[in-house]
Amino acid sequence: MTQIKVKTNILQANDEVAGQLKERFRAKGITVINLISSPGAGKTTLLEHSIPRLTEKYRVGVIEGDILTTRDADRIAKLNVPVVQIETKGACHLDANMVLKAAEQLDLDNLDFIIIENVGNLVCPATFELAEDAKVVVLSIAEGSDKPAKYPTIFTRAKACILNKMDLLPYSNFSLDDFYQDIKRINPQMEVFEVAALQETGLDSWLKWLEGMMVNGGQKD
Amino acid sequence: MTQIKVKTNILQANDEVAGQLKERFRAKGITVINLISSPGAGKTTLLEHSIPRLTEKYRVGVIEGDILTTRDADRIAKLNVPVVQIETKGACHLDANMVLKAAEQLDLDNLDFIIIENVGNLVCPATFELAEDAKVVVLSIAEGSDKPAKYPTIFTRAKACILNKMDLLPYSNFSLDDFYQDIKRINPQMEVFEVAALQETGLDSWLKWLEGMMVNGGQKD
Repeated sequence: MTQIKVKTNILQANDEVAGQLKERFRAKGITVINLISSPGAGKTTLLEHSIPRLTEKYRVGVIEGDILTTRDADRIAKLNVPVVQIETKGACHLDANMVLKAAEQLDLDNLDFIIIENVGNLVCPATFELAEDAKVVVLSIAEGSDKPAKYPTIFTRAKACILNKMDLLPYSNFSLDDFYQDIKRINPQMEVFEVAALQETGLDSWLKWLEGMMVNGGQKD
Repeated sequence: MTQIKVKTNILQANDEVAGQLKERFRAKGITVINLISSPGAGKTTLLEHSIPRLTEKYRVGVIEGDILTTRDADRIAKLNVPVVQIETKGACHLDANMVLKAAEQLDLDNLDFIIIENVGNLVCPATFELAEDAKVVVLSIAEGSDKPAKYPTIFTRAKACILNKMDLLPYSNFSLDDFYQDIKRINPQMEVFEVAALQETGLDSWLKWLEGMMVNGGQKD
């Protein structure tokens, strides 16, 4: 019983920080996306191919969560957008306090989007609010079509799903029918974008959806 | 400080249970493997294609960890081996107490191997001892060659790595050179088996290694 209480308190404390931070982002007109997936589903590659198109119209900052190494942050920094690295040193997810500290390193008066790339983990990040306007889950075709049923927390809470590495469909046993049937049951409102990020296919609808999510209606200051 | 202490105590308490359980498995001559990977790396498929060959010579029981659904346990049960399902209902890893309870459902006098399929998560399961003789990490080619450097805990602690879905190598940007360079740095003693479980290629060396791991030297009662 004690353990459950501790967990509840941790989540409550996190949600309070997240709530305050969200008000601050809203006041600045910044839309915040929390990108969650298993290791290697393609979050960083998705950003590498989405951000250059997004920055044609909008100002984008990135918060990179990793257990160790700055590899992903280094890749994003090459896109000439502000990047803040959070190295969790073992922690399996980002929390609102980490994002609060990272946000202090960003020029919030000059951003339309903050994209948070969470630690590669389909489980733990799902329950921690990071002041985001939307969680987006990335699922790789190679991971299999049974994942929404097996990891329902993130698939219930995400507003959109990037079904990535669509180019691997012919070489895998992923069933699109099974996948969409489970999504219909678990989270029928969730948007699904079929994408091959490395090949830059399917990105248009995803980028349009991101624009539609903008808290300031896409208006620049 | 309090939080770290709680975590230490949880791990200590877990290790005590694991230590006692390991003595029990040893006394029965049972070799225990703890299979860890990201969601969708292919743990269940690996077992589906390894167990029928293993049971030609040995008696195998399986403990299946999943957050939700009995899908994997159902797949393993079709192989006509004893399977115990642990549905963690949200928990991101198995612990020694869960394995202790699951083991009570198995006929320990008639087993040579227990294979534990952990929850799909490359982070949290790495630090919890489950009375295993070896942790084995499964990495799918689709996840990318940077994963050992980014998730060093499991790649340091595993005695073997199944590099799975080798058939996807031509369609991915996975670099075998980068992968082996990182392994050499992180855990040079680790055995790596290049496998395509679904196509049943590369399984011989892996099965031979499993035999070599046997605590009773492969002797039946």
